Amino acid sequence: MGLSLLYAVFGDPGVLAGFGFGASLAALFAQLGGGIFTKSADVGADLVGKVEENFPEDDPRNPAAIADNVGDNVGDEAGRGADLFESLTAENLGGMIIGLIVSIIIFNGVINPYYVTMPLIVRSLGIIATFVGLAVAVFEKKFKNPIKPTRDGLLVASVIAAILMFVATWYVFGPSGLTPSGSALAAYAGLAAGLLIVIYTEFYTGSNAKPVITIAERSKSGPALTIMSGNAVGMISSGLPVITVAIALLISFGLGEQFAGLIPALAGNAFLGGVYGTTMATMGMLSTAGIVLTMDGLGPIVDNAGGIAEMSGAPEIIRERIEPLDALGNTTKALTKGYAMGSAALASLLLFQAFVLEVARYKAGIINLTSLASNPSLAITLGTQLSGLGTFLALNRPDVIIGALIGGMLPFVFSGTAINAVSVGAYRMVEEVRRQLREIPGLREGTAKPNYAAAVDISTKTALRLMVVPGAIPVVAPIIVGLFLGWAAVGALVVGATISAIPLAIMMMWGGAAMDNAKKYVEMGHFGGKNTETHAATVVGDTVGDPWKDTAGPSLHILIKLLNTISLVFIPLFLSAIIIFH
Amino acid sequence: MGLSLLYAVFGDPGVLAGFGFGASLAALFAQLGGGIFTKSADVGADLVGKVEENFPEDDPRNPAAIADNVGDNVGDEAGRGADLFESLTAENLGGMIIGLIVSIIIFNGVINPYYVTMPLIVRSLGIIATFVGLAVAVFEKKFKNPIKPTRDGLLVASVIAAILMFVATWYVFGPSGLTPSGSALAAYAGLAAGLLIVIYTEFYTGSNAKPVITIAERSKSGPALTIMSGNAVGMISSGLPVITVAIALLISFGLGEQFAGLIPALAGNAFLGGVYGTTMATMGMLSTAGIVLTMDGLGPIVDNAGGIAEMSGAPEIIRERIEPLDALGNTTKALTKGYAMGSAALASLLLFQAFVLEVARYKAGIINLTSLASNPSLAITLGTQLSGLGTFLALNRPDVIIGALIGGMLPFVFSGTAINAVSVGAYRMVEEVRRQLREIPGLREGTAKPNYAAAVDISTKTALRLMVVPGAIPVVAPIIVGLFLGWAAVGALVVGATISAIPLAIMMMWGGAAMDNAKKYVEMGHFGGKNTETHAATVVGDTVGDPWKDTAGPSLHILIKLLNTISLVFIPLFLSAIIIFH
Repeated sequence: MGLSLLYAVFGDPGVLAGFGFGASLAALFAQLGGGIFTKSADVGADLVGKVEENFPEDDPRNPAAIADNVGDNVGDEAGRGADLFESLTAENLGGMIIGLIVSIIIFNGVINPYYVTMPLIVRSLGIIATFVGLAVAVFEKKFKNPIKPTRDGLLVASVIAAILMFVATWYVFGPSGLTPSGSALAAYAGLAAGLLIVIYTEFYTGSNAKPVITIAERSKSGPALTIMSGNAVGMISSGLPVITVAIALLISFGLGEQFAGLIPALAGNAFLGGVYGTTMATMGMLSTAGIVLTMDGLGPIVDNAGGIAEMSGAPEIIRERIEPLDALGNTTKALTKGYAMGSAALASLLLFQAFVLEVARYKAGIINLTSLASNPSLAITLGTQLSGLGTFLALNRPDVIIGALIGGMLPFVFSGTAINAVSVGAYRMVEEVRRQLREIPGLREGTAKPNYAAAVDISTKTALRLMVVPGAIPVVAPIIVGLFLGWAAVGALVVGATISAIPLAIMMMWGGAAMDNAKKYVEMGHFGGKNTETHAATVVGDTVGDPWKDTAGPSLHILIKLLNTISLVFIPLFLSAIIIFH
Repeated sequence: MGLSLLYAVFGDPGVLAGFGFGASLAALFAQLGGGIFTKSADVGADLVGKVEENFPEDDPRNPAAIADNVGDNVGDEAGRGADLFESLTAENLGGMIIGLIVSIIIFNGVINPYYVTMPLIVRSLGIIATFVGLAVAVFEKKFKNPIKPTRDGLLVASVIAAILMFVATWYVFGPSGLTPSGSALAAYAGLAAGLLIVIYTEFYTGSNAKPVITIAERSKSGPALTIMSGNAVGMISSGLPVITVAIALLISFGLGEQFAGLIPALAGNAFLGGVYGTTMATMGMLSTAGIVLTMDGLGPIVDNAGGIAEMSGAPEIIRERIEPLDALGNTTKALTKGYAMGSAALASLLLFQAFVLEVARYKAGIINLTSLASNPSLAITLGTQLSGLGTFLALNRPDVIIGALIGGMLPFVFSGTAINAVSVGAYRMVEEVRRQLREIPGLREGTAKPNYAAAVDISTKTALRLMVVPGAIPVVAPIIVGLFLGWAAVGALVVGATISAIPLAIMMMWGGAAMDNAKKYVEMGHFGGKNTETHAATVVGDTVGDPWKDTAGPSLHILIKLLNTISLVFIPLFLSAIIIFH
């Protein structure tokens, strides 16, 4: 609705980059700040509560318990919502810009509004598909495994989205221009990739997955082997999702290029058809975003319900009923993170293509779309500019290599500052919890109440103060690089960041999730169960994985999209760089 | 000598790619296999010996003690030697190919042998500089800090190398072609970058560095915070070296391009001058490789001497004399790893430029250099091919993006399999050591001897078997990608791998080294000293860091160079790819 309204007012998707920038910045604060908040509380609560005092999870005597529960909402719920909101915005924005340029080239200067609004149309159809999927999930009766309704809902929503996208491409592209069948098939490639990544998550991090059991087994030799194995699982698991995204790009680009070759107007620029193919793939993957986000919501809701039950001393039966739902919540949270990563990768590459097209548009002098109506020959200038831009983006150019090197490093420095923030917050939280246990008489016995507010305060202050540096990195870096080395270096920076952020994010998210579930596996009674050295080792592993999977990992999705929207917003600045190579 | 001999026989640097490929493969086996061997033994020995049995380091009662000592040579000594040998080979090979093409273009088809052999000349001068530096270090008397002679030797060697390179560029480029002053300045940019990276290593991982003390302090709250903080330090520390390498590239390319603009023959191809500038920078950085490798050798030698002193029950005075040298050895080992990473990055990007030039040469039909003598107009064809290649390497092309995505993921999967190998080996070693302590009577008391051979056997077998998969990845991946998507995708894969491998390697190497020194800091008596919870936490951190800093991290240097030499060897295959985009 936001983008539709802005487009109705301004009539130029390029202008909406500001909306995307705003969405990205807000998402970064929600995910990064929320992640630091929740993990400072969680790690701090566990280190004293579970390890030193042997309190159970969510024990009301633990001064950090409330901060931990609040954190579940701040980090997991608000963070993921902001993340997917940003992915959707990025996809719509990128898709609209690409649609605009493709339309100008195909129709020789005339803008076909359907081409521009295609992402909004697909998005609306995705909402319809989500509602049907939700209805299926909610009204399903007679099931044993609580994951069944959600899974069925996702499948139904996917099938309905696929059918509706087919109709939409036929309606929009049928009479002229791009091939409907090619576009629909390209969208299916993206849809399938999204579902495949969800399956991989389960394969590597599911509660009974082989890698998880291996981590639990090696924990018999202490926490060092837990973390080594968890780290290795995370790293190895980055292979399949990246290959899947690469194949989806290959298929959708190939289809787009193949079918675009049939259009006379695109004969010299079949490349644009390919780019539109990848746009359709991104729309396809994100068409199920609504229902995936619903699945994600389950985790924190059940987690908090469990916390309240524990803290209020609810009868045993209630906690027993919540427990299987809690395990389900962990699974759906992990699935959503995988999906969010895949969609961030596609949306980010889409925005990069939009960035290149916008640069061509600026260079062709089409700053204002009304200038096009008075001078259709600008469409030919745009086509010439487009085919000439490739040489500037050549990988052997120094500005491109330098941009890519710096871009590839940014996700590491960003993640390092985020993890450091959690370790500072957790350290302070540990000191505070220890202080309260020492100074408040009767706290350990449950006769006195802890000062929950002081603990919440530590999380809040740490999150607000320590997100300044990681928050500034993605804003400052591309502007400095672009100011000195120009737009091609910024483009390379953005692509370099995407390339290294995807495997880094998977390494952290899935490595962390696998260690979390290895701990749960031991708690279910395997390898000696609770109160053993093995269990203690998995608790350490889980704690190390906490900032990986809930702070730095998901924040990286936002980092790459933010870098992209900034590059779009500052194109005019980058076009007058200080150092220009021949 | 190897490359000089082959060049004297074949007269074509392109042919020497096979030598580089061989060097890379041997280096990978030495570093990766050696790294798995040494860390399986080290981690296994520590987990039972130090943590469970409270044996001191290198205790002869520990069945894994001999395997641990042998590992110091296999991993640290042979591995780093092979790594730098490969960097030197890569630099010479890449520099010779680039010199050949630059010479053909400048002298219109005539090959100037000085241009081709320039890297060999600079290498020979580097050896002379190394000898002088070594003499200074060895004959230095009256010093308090044992690091002083090595540091002085490095500085003297650097200054002499700088002077000799100035003379060489004046002699070779003076009469014709490239500008001597520009080339020498470009070489200094590389030399300075190498020294700067050595300084950064000390800043982040030195025994009294602030990040190290912070890790030690946070260890008071348990091993999870040790690892979180160490991980964060490693990630953050990747920033400065990458920016330094980027600036060295910027300066050297800019100088080369600037001065090449003065040569009429290069007027249309100033880019080549820039590439030659980065070649000079790489030569500059590697001119001190000899003395740096000498510094590296100190570590394992002293480490083993200490081990033998401990195991043989040598008098206390001997161990006291070895101790400060051991700390020095740790510092020089860390410095060398940083330097090896910087030189690997530059050598890898140099090989990529050589790869692009070789593709142009193949496309121009100059398969055999003798064809050039009979047909000088081929030089013009080569120039045309060169300027046309950029469009194929454009970052917005699907094959380039797909290649880069896959390349960026490879270092993660590679490192994951390497770390997993260590954790498997360590797990088996723990079982074996526990078994011997259980089954051999009198072992704990020192009256019976352990079965050292069985422990060595576990390290050997694990290393040989589990390096197959990580060893196969860099060979198989570029061939498959190139077979399907062609040479540009392979080039992008190689650059993508370099971009993500550099920060990943630094994260692991410096994160691991910082945790190692945090442990040493506590052992020196800070935060309670030995036999405290804090010390136990730093031991866990050190163990997690072991495969990072000694197995996966340094192996990544080799990975990126190996990917590059493979791309060079298989160019003819990649030129007939299955899928070709417009």
